[in-house]
Amino acid sequence: MAANFNVVGIGNAIVDVFAPADDAFIEANGLNRGAMNLIDADEAERLYAKMAPGRAVSGGSAANTIAGIASLGGSGGYIGKVCDDQLGEVFRHDIRAAGVAFETPPLSGPDAPPTARSLILVTPDAQRTMNTFLGACVELGPEDIDPAMIARAQVTYLEGYLWDRPKAKEAFIKAAKLAHAGGRRVSLTLSDSFCVERHRDSFRDLVTNHVDILFANDEEMRSLYETQTLEEALNAIHGDCELTVVTRSGDGSVVVDGVSVYEVDVEPVERVVDTTGAGDLYAAGFLYGFTQGKHPAECGRIGSIAAAEIVSHYGARPERNLAKLLAATRPDPGT
Amino acid sequence: MAANFNVVGIGNAIVDVFAPADDAFIEANGLNRGAMNLIDADEAERLYAKMAPGRAVSGGSAANTIAGIASLGGSGGYIGKVCDDQLGEVFRHDIRAAGVAFETPPLSGPDAPPTARSLILVTPDAQRTMNTFLGACVELGPEDIDPAMIARAQVTYLEGYLWDRPKAKEAFIKAAKLAHAGGRRVSLTLSDSFCVERHRDSFRDLVTNHVDILFANDEEMRSLYETQTLEEALNAIHGDCELTVVTRSGDGSVVVDGVSVYEVDVEPVERVVDTTGAGDLYAAGFLYGFTQGKHPAECGRIGSIAAAEIVSHYGARPERNLAKLLAATRPDPGT
Repeated sequence: MAANFNVVGIGNAIVDVFAPADDAFIEANGLNRGAMNLIDADEAERLYAKMAPGRAVSGGSAANTIAGIASLGGSGGYIGKVCDDQLGEVFRHDIRAAGVAFETPPLSGPDAPPTARSLILVTPDAQRTMNTFLGACVELGPEDIDPAMIARAQVTYLEGYLWDRPKAKEAFIKAAKLAHAGGRRVSLTLSDSFCVERHRDSFRDLVTNHVDILFANDEEMRSLYETQTLEEALNAIHGDCELTVVTRSGDGSVVVDGVSVYEVDVEPVERVVDTTGAGDLYAAGFLYGFTQGKHPAECGRIGSIAAAEIVSHYGARPERNLAKLLAATRPDPGT
Repeated sequence: MAANFNVVGIGNAIVDVFAPADDAFIEANGLNRGAMNLIDADEAERLYAKMAPGRAVSGGSAANTIAGIASLGGSGGYIGKVCDDQLGEVFRHDIRAAGVAFETPPLSGPDAPPTARSLILVTPDAQRTMNTFLGACVELGPEDIDPAMIARAQVTYLEGYLWDRPKAKEAFIKAAKLAHAGGRRVSLTLSDSFCVERHRDSFRDLVTNHVDILFANDEEMRSLYETQTLEEALNAIHGDCELTVVTRSGDGSVVVDGVSVYEVDVEPVERVVDTTGAGDLYAAGFLYGFTQGKHPAECGRIGSIAAAEIVSHYGARPERNLAKLLAATRPDPGT
């Protein structure tokens, strides 16, 4: 069957609630600054009560990536679990309105956990500290993996955050096997260094045995292989993945294809407002380029352009048409 | 009793969902451009399904005004009806987090209508077309008017939109009578020219018998008195209200105090993004000034500063601290 999705993503289906906060607030509430903190319903209620007025925008790491693929003009599908409540309706609306196929049945009934939300505190340095109540996401399981959807995708993209739940882990492995059985690629983002710490051994196993294209930031790579430097980590992974893509915030990104190492500059941004989704949109641009057969360095450049758009406003879903934004630039003449 | 609220507002408690739209979309869906269109649950579902991905921010005309009062450093209370659903939680959180007292009991139970939402389409000219499903708001009634709260407020502020529902109308009159019995002021915003057309006679009666400070835009004033020019409308209202305040979009505002007419310039804005809430925040600034005993022209100037902040971003709740913004300006030397 011909692939007619560029990328299908599997992840935690989350509505983000953004509010500004100062550093004292992060500290006083014992939050891991810059990280994704998992919180339960009670903690979510307590933290929300203390937060400034917010704005709600659909989020979820892989969902942001797939919305980015669609905004770039690609075709995307998404698998993730919401509840049939108001936030679930918001999530479903937004991802479909972005042009993404999304058919995962929602939870329902009086005892169903609500749609996940992430309370995201943005400090004056534009860093985001995420506090996620997973809600309905914990019910995502192998039965939600639609084999037909995976078969139709050039790349199946998985977010590391899912690794926190046993059923989602099963779903993950099922999807990876289906993708490979159909001759497709599997891509993973490590998501968060705390997430890597929680699951180091099984992540290594996953990378070695199931992943073709790995996304990570510098810290996550070093955590995965317990190395001091990124170079050592890249040596450790050598050969395990077809492509390893490492983002380094303001220092650009590095793409390793097993033969060469490509360094990609960041795209300049007038004012960084909120870094939420920078990695997700970098992955969107990269994978979009990859599915168009672009050179790894050009994939990285498209990723940087998509990331630059997302950090220029609150929220991790594109507010400008990325295809137009991309068309207004020209490929690096060196690639 | 000493007043310890500057202003208490009564209005439709709404969560706004903003999305960009082009003019063709407004036309194809038969919407009144620039107006507030009332829609039912089915229409809301149909329109939402066609809208672009959105962002949700608490709204509601009088609620925006009271949030503005709080941001200016004033003290505010709010009365409005939500359901105990997720959007109701968002509304309650946001208004309380803004520092506003809000104690109206929410609706609950399986048959309760959901929290109101307004689907707000923002066209490239930054004009907003609002499509409001009133939901739980229709249940606001006189029993929700807390006499103690009204007694504590220097000004009780009412939004004309409420006039669409008989029970809310009763609540309105009850609040106005309570305020006057306590020697307080009553203020009304006409809200929308279509709303004025629907209720012209009873609005005129309300203005004549119950309102001390009237807010309207040019079109609403002319509609209320069925005149061709604003001057004729201002002549018609002469003496009925202590203060009549008319906003004229880009042409500034006019304040009439029964003796004099003051013209107030608009505050320059770098880029107008979304005009939603401009009138609400103008009223916030004006009433804040009024409760501080400021000259009418200075009240208008504070209104213009608050309105300028709100049109510079999506959403009708202040994103910057208005007290700081105001402190950074200096009063017009002429006043």
